[in-house]
Amino acid sequence: MDIIVQKYGGTSVGTLERIRRVAKRVVAAAEEGKSVLVVVSAMSGETNRLVGLCSEASLAHNGREYDVIVSSGEQVSAGLLAMILNDMGSPALTLLAHQIPVLTDDTHGSARIKDIKTDVIKKRLAEGFVVVVPGFQGVTEGGDITTLGRGGSDTTAVALAAALEAEVCEIYTDVEGVFTTDPGLCADARKLGKISYDEMLEMASLGAKVLQTRSVEFARKYSIPVLVRSSFTDSEGTLVTMEDEDMEKVVVSGITYERDEAKISVVGVPDRPGIAARIFKPLTDAGINVDMIVQNIGTEASTDLTFTVSESDFDEAMTITKATASEIKAADIVGDRDISKVSIVGAGMKSHAGIASKTFTVLAGEGINIEMISTSEIKISCVVESKYMELAVRVLHKAFGLAHEPLV
Amino acid sequence: MDIIVQKYGGTSVGTLERIRRVAKRVVAAAEEGKSVLVVVSAMSGETNRLVGLCSEASLAHNGREYDVIVSSGEQVSAGLLAMILNDMGSPALTLLAHQIPVLTDDTHGSARIKDIKTDVIKKRLAEGFVVVVPGFQGVTEGGDITTLGRGGSDTTAVALAAALEAEVCEIYTDVEGVFTTDPGLCADARKLGKISYDEMLEMASLGAKVLQTRSVEFARKYSIPVLVRSSFTDSEGTLVTMEDEDMEKVVVSGITYERDEAKISVVGVPDRPGIAARIFKPLTDAGINVDMIVQNIGTEASTDLTFTVSESDFDEAMTITKATASEIKAADIVGDRDISKVSIVGAGMKSHAGIASKTFTVLAGEGINIEMISTSEIKISCVVESKYMELAVRVLHKAFGLAHEPLV
Repeated sequence: MDIIVQKYGGTSVGTLERIRRVAKRVVAAAEEGKSVLVVVSAMSGETNRLVGLCSEASLAHNGREYDVIVSSGEQVSAGLLAMILNDMGSPALTLLAHQIPVLTDDTHGSARIKDIKTDVIKKRLAEGFVVVVPGFQGVTEGGDITTLGRGGSDTTAVALAAALEAEVCEIYTDVEGVFTTDPGLCADARKLGKISYDEMLEMASLGAKVLQTRSVEFARKYSIPVLVRSSFTDSEGTLVTMEDEDMEKVVVSGITYERDEAKISVVGVPDRPGIAARIFKPLTDAGINVDMIVQNIGTEASTDLTFTVSESDFDEAMTITKATASEIKAADIVGDRDISKVSIVGAGMKSHAGIASKTFTVLAGEGINIEMISTSEIKISCVVESKYMELAVRVLHKAFGLAHEPLV
Repeated sequence: MDIIVQKYGGTSVGTLERIRRVAKRVVAAAEEGKSVLVVVSAMSGETNRLVGLCSEASLAHNGREYDVIVSSGEQVSAGLLAMILNDMGSPALTLLAHQIPVLTDDTHGSARIKDIKTDVIKKRLAEGFVVVVPGFQGVTEGGDITTLGRGGSDTTAVALAAALEAEVCEIYTDVEGVFTTDPGLCADARKLGKISYDEMLEMASLGAKVLQTRSVEFARKYSIPVLVRSSFTDSEGTLVTMEDEDMEKVVVSGITYERDEAKISVVGVPDRPGIAARIFKPLTDAGINVDMIVQNIGTEASTDLTFTVSESDFDEAMTITKATASEIKAADIVGDRDISKVSIVGAGMKSHAGIASKTFTVLAGEGINIEMISTSEIKISCVVESKYMELAVRVLHKAFGLAHEPLV
């Protein structure tokens, strides 16, 4: 059985008219002889409406009942698509999470998929049905409804593709694919034909607009090719897949950025083992996500430690870190909410020297000061003053030749 | 375990404010030491919205997917009530149809309950939870969602009460109970304290506004006392229960009516066995519900046969019956869409003679001609010209002393 999984996001199923357009694509795939499993999000706006009802109903968050309520949005859009497919002469039916079942742990609101049974789905596909599955939802062993967190429908789709050993998981969304950088910042940004899982993960905000991070991790783990494309055009989209030789030839795939970052430096930290843990544990406990961490070797027995958090967490992070700083007798603490992060991503980077120094040279050439640097095998991130962010993206995009020609 | 089942209709859970009011009633019952199971309808307007989406999506009716979509309304209101109960300090959780399970046949849109398992519910009640169940929905053996038809939440509540051997099933709605007649027609109509299952069923339209017929049949079968009361006042409501001696003392319990009826007479029907079947089978096949049937003994070898249908079915019924009449060589066919039905209902009637003649005398005294008569053990129905309907209700309500004093 040649199985393909297609996932349509909230905008793609936002109106009945759009659901009909989706149905035509599904029918086309079915007519090519594929067994098609479709995962849908809730109609756009619907999840927000349901979440709004929950917050209005109750201040205390009741995760179990929240999931019962919020998951109903996908149930409706799945039913509507199945109806319309039948109208078009393509036999289709929904299978809800409890019918498959899609088993998760019981972390309501951000449950993890533990297991997906495939017997029922395979039976229905073999009978010639298009199977429509509401994304974003699962059930616990006890049958309680769970949800996978925002954007969880991507994860549902990739997980189902993995369980069914599908040829490909097609993610239909309102963008045409993954671009070399934000076309809103760089008019000559180009759509990438192919990108590796790792690059996709490192593309951070740029990638996350397109595909939920967790679903990419899932796809990488099970080697599921994921094709990201627009449900509104016939453009070919971007294939997220394993790294191949082609990709290594391409040194830099894209320039990504994070605008709403903030930086906190703890200055004059006594250089003792366990100090970093003392600083970061209270932040983690408060649910604050720390992004970059840089530690400079200080003079004598003290060191400086700088890290970034998202701007919305800045005030809380400062309060917490000030308390810690005074406990560990750090000399000072300095905060700056006026910074952004610019990153160069590319799988080919690991076999090419000089990308870092080229980056620094290009930025220096524009008089842009780099406040923090952090590197991984396939990514170099620089923190700069926010006002230089757009300029930095544009000059790097140009310097690495990203606008010139199709990359693959 | 002293279990009570409470059911709240769409108007009672129409807004979050109203759901909070419902929650207070539930908490009060729980604080009296009862184990409370609550069944809820969808928030008023929600089922219509979802049904509207379905009709807009598809002209062909897809019952299976219709049920997936429409059942989501009750899922949401159930979740909201459970959230709010927890907020009020009363531990509560939802159990959806597939979790209990509430097993039905696979007649989507009007499924019949086959079995209800009670283990999971009883376990949760014993743990001290209020259990909130979305009404109107069930699952097939294969886990497909089904719905029980409009008003099906009443049936869910009574069926759960039966399965759990609950003390009582309380149905909270937007009326205060069952009245001796429509208070809109008779200012002195009174609320009945008690009524038998049979009377409730015979109350037809008057009763059906309060409680779905199927749920009354269910309650009668399992002898579940059903208390119908308003969720907006503290009024005591009407207890629907087994007939007892008290009730037999009351000769007439209420006057009910059906405004939108129409009458068809097939005149000069050859009086042969099988003729009635020839006339009614085509109507049944067309889904037309025939209400009263009266056959007059005719002269010689022919007879007249008169029956009523609802006014909305009149044109189609006339067309069908004209065809049959010509096949069976009836002399003529006469239709009248300008009639109404007035009925006198009372369990005490069977042991009291003279109710019929009193009815006819009272109507004759007002110059109201009776066009058809049909009687059962506890009901006398008269078809009259529509313009006399209100008058007939009022004079009968007065003549049988229904306005005077509490009946039980």
